[in-house]
Amino acid sequence: MRRPTALSTPGLSVQRDGARTITRALPAEVPVAMVFDGSTQAVMMASPDDLEDFAIGFALTEGFIDSPDQVEELEIAHHPKGIEARFWLNHGHGAVLAARRRSMAGPVGCGLCGIDSIDQAIRPLPSLASDLRFDAAHVARATEALRQWQPLHDRTRAVHAAGQLRADGSIARAREDVGRHNALDKLIGALARDGEDAGACAFVITSRVSVEMVQKTVMAGCPILIAVSAPTALAVELAEQAGLTLAAFARGSGFDLYAHPHRIKTGAADVA
Amino acid sequence: MRRPTALSTPGLSVQRDGARTITRALPAEVPVAMVFDGSTQAVMMASPDDLEDFAIGFALTEGFIDSPDQVEELEIAHHPKGIEARFWLNHGHGAVLAARRRSMAGPVGCGLCGIDSIDQAIRPLPSLASDLRFDAAHVARATEALRQWQPLHDRTRAVHAAGQLRADGSIARAREDVGRHNALDKLIGALARDGEDAGACAFVITSRVSVEMVQKTVMAGCPILIAVSAPTALAVELAEQAGLTLAAFARGSGFDLYAHPHRIKTGAADVA
Repeated sequence: MRRPTALSTPGLSVQRDGARTITRALPAEVPVAMVFDGSTQAVMMASPDDLEDFAIGFALTEGFIDSPDQVEELEIAHHPKGIEARFWLNHGHGAVLAARRRSMAGPVGCGLCGIDSIDQAIRPLPSLASDLRFDAAHVARATEALRQWQPLHDRTRAVHAAGQLRADGSIARAREDVGRHNALDKLIGALARDGEDAGACAFVITSRVSVEMVQKTVMAGCPILIAVSAPTALAVELAEQAGLTLAAFARGSGFDLYAHPHRIKTGAADVA
Repeated sequence: MRRPTALSTPGLSVQRDGARTITRALPAEVPVAMVFDGSTQAVMMASPDDLEDFAIGFALTEGFIDSPDQVEELEIAHHPKGIEARFWLNHGHGAVLAARRRSMAGPVGCGLCGIDSIDQAIRPLPSLASDLRFDAAHVARATEALRQWQPLHDRTRAVHAAGQLRADGSIARAREDVGRHNALDKLIGALARDGEDAGACAFVITSRVSVEMVQKTVMAGCPILIAVSAPTALAVELAEQAGLTLAAFARGSGFDLYAHPHRIKTGAADVA
């Protein structure tokens, strides 16, 4: 069963010269449950495509697995109201999962006091060491390059994208989703499933940079994150700590660098 | 202890004519734990202001309370890494909370199977019955009117807002946050704390309309939601079911209506 990612929806367009009926393509939004060894760990509202990529990416960036090899089986089950991604992990990872479940901060009365939950929302991240370097001109043009890889956004004007930028300035792959976290998880899952090294590219995103976008990029091992919009102060702080190069306000003519600028060749000639 | 909502952050602006050091105001982002009767129910990344509004609004829209009267005590506790909103509910509401905890879908291994979790992500909503009507011209101009109430966005270019639109086209109050859900919860909490009827106004938001924005608006009892950007198909479906008037792409010259258009006077003269 394949679900549409956009649905033709009737509406009424009200403009200065009057109202008329219209039909617009609006993005589908479907609950996706992530179920590990029979226990639901999260439900996300998502665009119903690239679901294997989404599931593997989520499992990696949220620490349920370290590698796709640890997944014995992944089944995507479609139900009338939503989708289940059912993971069966290799023997031995059940223990890891149980430990993670105990330590995870979250919306269900977990017995943790507020201070423990706060600490775990800002979980410790691995440290990125990479001598990858990108030309400033490629960073400046990254979000424009990504625009060519957003077919669902072209139809709906309402979804986010995350792209893999090569050092030559080209986009190698991209994924879209109604949720910016999901788009990034889908990209990360696609790279992992294809055996590609996230450490050899930059990630480009169409959104602001909140803490979670830094956390997911670092967990994937990618050393450079480029965003069209602003970062939060805490996102900058975590990027600094984790060794992530953070470029924001990337809009054709230039960009801002907030952490580890050494990976970007910023001579004036590079941005020409 | 009052935390800043924006932090001056050094950076490097890389433009065509070279790179120069800059300082920008970036929005603060802080983990806020919602703790009910000693048990943490959720941790959200949020802008650290209007925290009582945020806590009360969250408790209302997520079904922990039906009215602020049910809160015996609310304490905002500041810690080095985050903030706790500690609720103590009136005798009798502990049982409601326990029931909700059992039935809530969420990120911590809750024992629910995926299908149950999916059903609960699309929880049943009350039905809005209201004969409130707004002029189309006021709906069209609502997001422009809200722009005057976004001081944190003016400083950081990076936060969302939710505003209360009166039937005369003026904004009565607004709240800002790095998260669009949080901005709406803050507005809803502010209304409830001031004893204002959400049923007599429209809500205006600076974001897209996902399912959660519809859920929160309906839970607050507000019959009209106006957004600057697009809705998802599922958001339209839920708005239709719950009796919510949904206006999207509201940008000065006009807007689209996707559910219950009868509350908007759409004669051509109204949009002039």
